[in-house]
Amino acid sequence: MSRAPFDWIDGESERRERAGLVRTLRPRAADQDLLDLASNDYLGLTRHPAVTGGAAEAAHRWGAGATGSRLVTGTTALHTELERELAAFCGFEAALVFSSGYAANLAALTALGPHGSLIVSDAGNHASIVDGCRLARARTEVVPHASPEAVRKALETHGGPGLVVSDSVFSVDGDAAPLTQLAAACREFGAALVVDDAHGLGVLGEGGRGALHAAGLAGADDVVATVTLSKSLGSQGGAVLGPARVVRHLVNAARTFIFDTGLAPAAVGGALAALRHLRAEPELAARARSVAAELHGRLTAAGHLAVRPDAAVVSVRAPSPEAAVAWAADCRAAGLVVGCFRPPSVPDGISRIRLTARADLTERQIDSAVGTILRTAPTA
Amino acid sequence: MSRAPFDWIDGESERRERAGLVRTLRPRAADQDLLDLASNDYLGLTRHPAVTGGAAEAAHRWGAGATGSRLVTGTTALHTELERELAAFCGFEAALVFSSGYAANLAALTALGPHGSLIVSDAGNHASIVDGCRLARARTEVVPHASPEAVRKALETHGGPGLVVSDSVFSVDGDAAPLTQLAAACREFGAALVVDDAHGLGVLGEGGRGALHAAGLAGADDVVATVTLSKSLGSQGGAVLGPARVVRHLVNAARTFIFDTGLAPAAVGGALAALRHLRAEPELAARARSVAAELHGRLTAAGHLAVRPDAAVVSVRAPSPEAAVAWAADCRAAGLVVGCFRPPSVPDGISRIRLTARADLTERQIDSAVGTILRTAPTA
Repeated sequence: MSRAPFDWIDGESERRERAGLVRTLRPRAADQDLLDLASNDYLGLTRHPAVTGGAAEAAHRWGAGATGSRLVTGTTALHTELERELAAFCGFEAALVFSSGYAANLAALTALGPHGSLIVSDAGNHASIVDGCRLARARTEVVPHASPEAVRKALETHGGPGLVVSDSVFSVDGDAAPLTQLAAACREFGAALVVDDAHGLGVLGEGGRGALHAAGLAGADDVVATVTLSKSLGSQGGAVLGPARVVRHLVNAARTFIFDTGLAPAAVGGALAALRHLRAEPELAARARSVAAELHGRLTAAGHLAVRPDAAVVSVRAPSPEAAVAWAADCRAAGLVVGCFRPPSVPDGISRIRLTARADLTERQIDSAVGTILRTAPTA
Repeated sequence: MSRAPFDWIDGESERRERAGLVRTLRPRAADQDLLDLASNDYLGLTRHPAVTGGAAEAAHRWGAGATGSRLVTGTTALHTELERELAAFCGFEAALVFSSGYAANLAALTALGPHGSLIVSDAGNHASIVDGCRLARARTEVVPHASPEAVRKALETHGGPGLVVSDSVFSVDGDAAPLTQLAAACREFGAALVVDDAHGLGVLGEGGRGALHAAGLAGADDVVATVTLSKSLGSQGGAVLGPARVVRHLVNAARTFIFDTGLAPAAVGGALAALRHLRAEPELAARARSVAAELHGRLTAAGHLAVRPDAAVVSVRAPSPEAAVAWAADCRAAGLVVGCFRPPSVPDGISRIRLTARADLTERQIDSAVGTILRTAPTA
């Protein structure tokens, strides 16, 4: 053999190593004794007995898998129940559950962005939105972050059918999109608005009904939301929420719905239990936000740079990728898990440690976390 | 508002209705009393107590969700255990688990098909492979179905780095890819071979080790497999199997790995329990194949057209989309669930009813299924 097909990977790997950007998996134990400020478990429900019980019961009752595409054997009455309750909770006419938020975004963008239309996408949007735009037959124009004016210009120049897509809360810095202005721009030009509320569901809006409910946009006939079941709802999967005709269209046209196995019953049952728990304890949403505000307030008071959190994500800037990695490692050594964002997964090239607030953090845990972060901070 | 953004959907919907191609969801009950020959539960493990127990126990022990990206908090020791056992079982050096087979295919193709390379893709490949090719920076050439000669020509003409991708067992007709010849063509031109063994794992090869193991290709340094955990393993998710350096590369470069929430512990636990069950009862694989052969033999003996099954999928031709729909509906009315494939999800435009063999079908169930299918068959 003259060439070994995967030899090029070694060169990529060496480049990554020289740049200090190698990622490795760090499996956690079931009884790991670390304080977690890195997960997306905003309401602390992943390990709540009602939620794990809902997941386990669904596995026993419905089986460990959905057994096929949602269109063949993969739709159980439990899927329908979750779709109905989720749509009602968030204020939409209908919902459709997918095996991941990634799949939900690919579905919404490919099925709702046909050939000849324009997708206007915020430069800070999540990777799954970027990939959805690339897969869609529409042309995509990427506009500067959080700029309704740039969105207006793009729609005006295009003239034809358009769709504007934005995260509601941006994962990297935790800042919120200007949804009201985006919706106004859309309506001025007859465009649809698709909002990924992955980080808003359970955290924003009355009782955690999400960013679109908070903005008075839920249920509008020109608005679609995508959400995940794996963050505030502590489980796995994603969903698209919108007008019934849009959901029916996705059932018929979205490849990541038609050609994927349905979400496992345990994930459906877990998410449904979490949703019911949140309905019964609506104050969880405000609690997650107030923990984030406290983390932000104490860290910026100590001189750190962090965008004011609009939801439950607090990102603290680090002077370099290496400093961010060292900071996160020092936190971990002191018993605290924080996220570490660095190129290439941050579009602006700025490295950060990233904290996620959880509604179930105690004041003592917050004190301990803040103390650890300040003690291990890089000296700039 | 001059235009309502989603009005175009109504036109699509009417076109679909006129063509008789509307798809609707049919939720099933937990205690549904129908004989299922439509699911991908080839070994009948989805509802096996060891498998549902494995899923439930994992939810209790690890939580209802993975809580984040596999690179942040989403990797549990259970994920690593499944990856190790799955790689060893199938004969590969390493494995990486994803939230779906769809995500695994997107990952393999985008991360292993860089700019400047050529992906050669079989015309019958699954939608997730097609979408992976579209997302990859490589150029894609689609070649006629199951044609090693066309693959050779494409690689020869291209000259540069190449990757050949094929399903091992094609979902529509249940026929197998010519893996040995494909591997030979790859080796002649220094190309990599990526095989989606979704329908082969658990059914083909010694004890269900899959099509690549059967072909003596598992573990080769130029071969990568993708599999699902949602068919023979009765759970949810997907995996990429290959050389350790390929898996490390995916951890660093595959967007559907990096930017997706890790597979839920219940799905990991269910798949692991199913894998162990299969190891303990290796005859399940041969049983699934022999049930398929029996279904095929009896239906073709009665005059129906069906490709000889290489695995557990038996597709029986129907004269038209309408006839296929009516046939499947009549089977269901008689207590038998069969799949119905019709345009646009069949690339060749031929409608079929599609049967999947299961290792746990009894002779009496097979008799009953064959009787129903023959009795309800369209009169041509």
